[in-house]
Amino acid sequence: MSNAVSPLAPKHVPDLPPLGGVRLATAAAGIRYKGRTDVLLALLDPGTTVAGVFTTSKCPSAPVEWCRGKLKGGKARALVVNSGNANAFTGKTGRASTALTAKIAAKAVGCSVDDIFLASTGVIGEPLDATKFDGVLGTLAQQAEADLWHDAAKAIMTTDTFFKVATATVKIGKAKVTINGMAKGAGMIAPDMATMLSFVFTDAPLSASVLQSLLKAGVANTFNAVTIDGDTSTSDTLLAFATGAAKDAPKIARASDPRLKAFVKAFNAVLADLAEQVARDGEGARKLVEITVEGATTDKSARRIAMSIANSPLVKTAIAGEDANWGRVVMAVGKAGEPADRDKLSIAFNGIRVAKNGARDPSYDEAEVSKAMKDDVIRIKVALGLGKGRDRVLTCDLTKEYVAINGDYRS
Amino acid sequence: MSNAVSPLAPKHVPDLPPLGGVRLATAAAGIRYKGRTDVLLALLDPGTTVAGVFTTSKCPSAPVEWCRGKLKGGKARALVVNSGNANAFTGKTGRASTALTAKIAAKAVGCSVDDIFLASTGVIGEPLDATKFDGVLGTLAQQAEADLWHDAAKAIMTTDTFFKVATATVKIGKAKVTINGMAKGAGMIAPDMATMLSFVFTDAPLSASVLQSLLKAGVANTFNAVTIDGDTSTSDTLLAFATGAAKDAPKIARASDPRLKAFVKAFNAVLADLAEQVARDGEGARKLVEITVEGATTDKSARRIAMSIANSPLVKTAIAGEDANWGRVVMAVGKAGEPADRDKLSIAFNGIRVAKNGARDPSYDEAEVSKAMKDDVIRIKVALGLGKGRDRVLTCDLTKEYVAINGDYRS
Repeated sequence: MSNAVSPLAPKHVPDLPPLGGVRLATAAAGIRYKGRTDVLLALLDPGTTVAGVFTTSKCPSAPVEWCRGKLKGGKARALVVNSGNANAFTGKTGRASTALTAKIAAKAVGCSVDDIFLASTGVIGEPLDATKFDGVLGTLAQQAEADLWHDAAKAIMTTDTFFKVATATVKIGKAKVTINGMAKGAGMIAPDMATMLSFVFTDAPLSASVLQSLLKAGVANTFNAVTIDGDTSTSDTLLAFATGAAKDAPKIARASDPRLKAFVKAFNAVLADLAEQVARDGEGARKLVEITVEGATTDKSARRIAMSIANSPLVKTAIAGEDANWGRVVMAVGKAGEPADRDKLSIAFNGIRVAKNGARDPSYDEAEVSKAMKDDVIRIKVALGLGKGRDRVLTCDLTKEYVAINGDYRS
Repeated sequence: MSNAVSPLAPKHVPDLPPLGGVRLATAAAGIRYKGRTDVLLALLDPGTTVAGVFTTSKCPSAPVEWCRGKLKGGKARALVVNSGNANAFTGKTGRASTALTAKIAAKAVGCSVDDIFLASTGVIGEPLDATKFDGVLGTLAQQAEADLWHDAAKAIMTTDTFFKVATATVKIGKAKVTINGMAKGAGMIAPDMATMLSFVFTDAPLSASVLQSLLKAGVANTFNAVTIDGDTSTSDTLLAFATGAAKDAPKIARASDPRLKAFVKAFNAVLADLAEQVARDGEGARKLVEITVEGATTDKSARRIAMSIANSPLVKTAIAGEDANWGRVVMAVGKAGEPADRDKLSIAFNGIRVAKNGARDPSYDEAEVSKAMKDDVIRIKVALGLGKGRDRVLTCDLTKEYVAINGDYRS
């Protein structure tokens, strides 16, 4: 498996400032990987609220079930993440393992197990030996520091070729608040599950219900608008924590409060930044692909059509081949099952219109398009000409490297 | 692009007997390919009935729209198929081109344009110059012979690595009737669209409505249960013709007539045989994959789960890598959105159970499974343990060759 950093990795990695109420520590517990950290403990001060969104899989992992259950309390004192073993499809052993991990963490932190949140990523179907956390978590709780964000983002990686962080500072009323986030990428399941995990922290004083509203609204056009291969991990988890350490900030009771406007924008920008980094690190990706659909009957219809294009192996292989193959885009529009009129379709690649009114654009210059297709970001725009529905999703190309990463590891 | 015959090609190709009421001819019209035939004319005796099923694409090709319109008459005198140009996404030019092709064919055959059926496969977005058929179809109508089934199947190929035919002989009452069929394979769109086309002929005297009922019922578990890459051509077409030349056979008015029982079985077997050959010639395919889902709440639910597995890039790349990766199968079950209980799932590869009750089967022998995964046919069985719903679909693995075929042709 290639360890080369994706050519689409961001050129600049931001420093993440300390964030009141959060302390971090990492360790190498030897769960699966040698010579690298594989456990993250995030300590959260009392009063921290929590929100979460999870995989829609009907076969979720044990940690996903754990978090769903604990979310009702709305409070969190610690997050424990391990890489190397997903604790997914491990039956009753899996449930016992999450319970034991939470018990060890609660003891280390000095809180109730109900305030412990868990995420695991890595091999699936293998029992996770939670006794490995015994001792480790106690030590980590002692060592935790405010300034270890990059280390934290590295500890949760599996097949990621770069660590993913984002940050924003913004005002609520007159108080400065910070948002720090990290993510790990998606694409592959066992034996090295590349589940999508993301954790976002803020010192803003937000109730759990406000945080949940913001998170649910925020993922729709960020994490839920990214697809690598159309496959859905059993462990996808996005948790948000609000410590309330920004004491001067006004307490906000409703997500629609106008004083939150700048915060919501920054929060969504952090989610969008992390989600785009996930697409940029799609397995084997050589090109980031943005698909915009406009003129659909509704936004929902535009989303379905955009996802049909984004998940089409024929569209994705064409982009890998640097081919502005609009015929395959038409195919993917047609198979989406949504209202579309072939004879009103127009399609552009990186701003160059190649098809209009259901046929090749007569002004289309093959040489110009071929040159544009060499860019490492490809923007496909499809105009349906039916209504005002619009959406945008991100994906990556489908390369031989993807097949190699996911099919060759036994050889 | 590789021209090597798929390692999954059938070892035996049947001879197709002459079939009363059908005469065939092929020509090299130079539509796109050099040095090979690219036009098929099938002449059908007066009284021939016709039925058809087509792509569900919302952006169908001009020939698909033409056939749908003409199907209402229920009669056919000729089928014209060209390879090399799909006449898809060609706007108004496309409609004019189908009309002109039908006019030329009707003149050559001496019938109404309403009795002409058309199918095109090949590059999309390029205008099809129908004047190329002028002269050619007249000559073909003169030359047509009863014994050219293999030549016919070759003329309709695009990226297929072998031609696909199937035949059956069966009795209706005391009369012997024949069913002959041909197909071309699926997987790739422009510039060499590998649309799925299939044409099935019988000399049984069946009304158009009986034939349509049989065809609609027959495709559900054959052609509609095959997927290569989840992409849907704008041109997929399956037409059935019944000449009625088997004069001694009783006329059948209802598809449910018990005298049709053996015929229906044989008809479905021909469709199943052709559909399996399409899967065996999936682009880049090295393994034929059969996915059986049982214990679902309904058959429809089983189909959706089976298709979710069959279209999962992670499952398909694992099979290419000869890895019995049941974790990815769980993932694909989970993402289908259908009722499933992780802790009741069991999964077998080629008869070897690898997972049961939501965890790894303790008796699972890695060496035995690894050996089984080297077979060129992989049978995945998923038991959900919820109800009596059951289904079976066919697909193939996802190899680097698939990416090469669909992404490399510009280089």
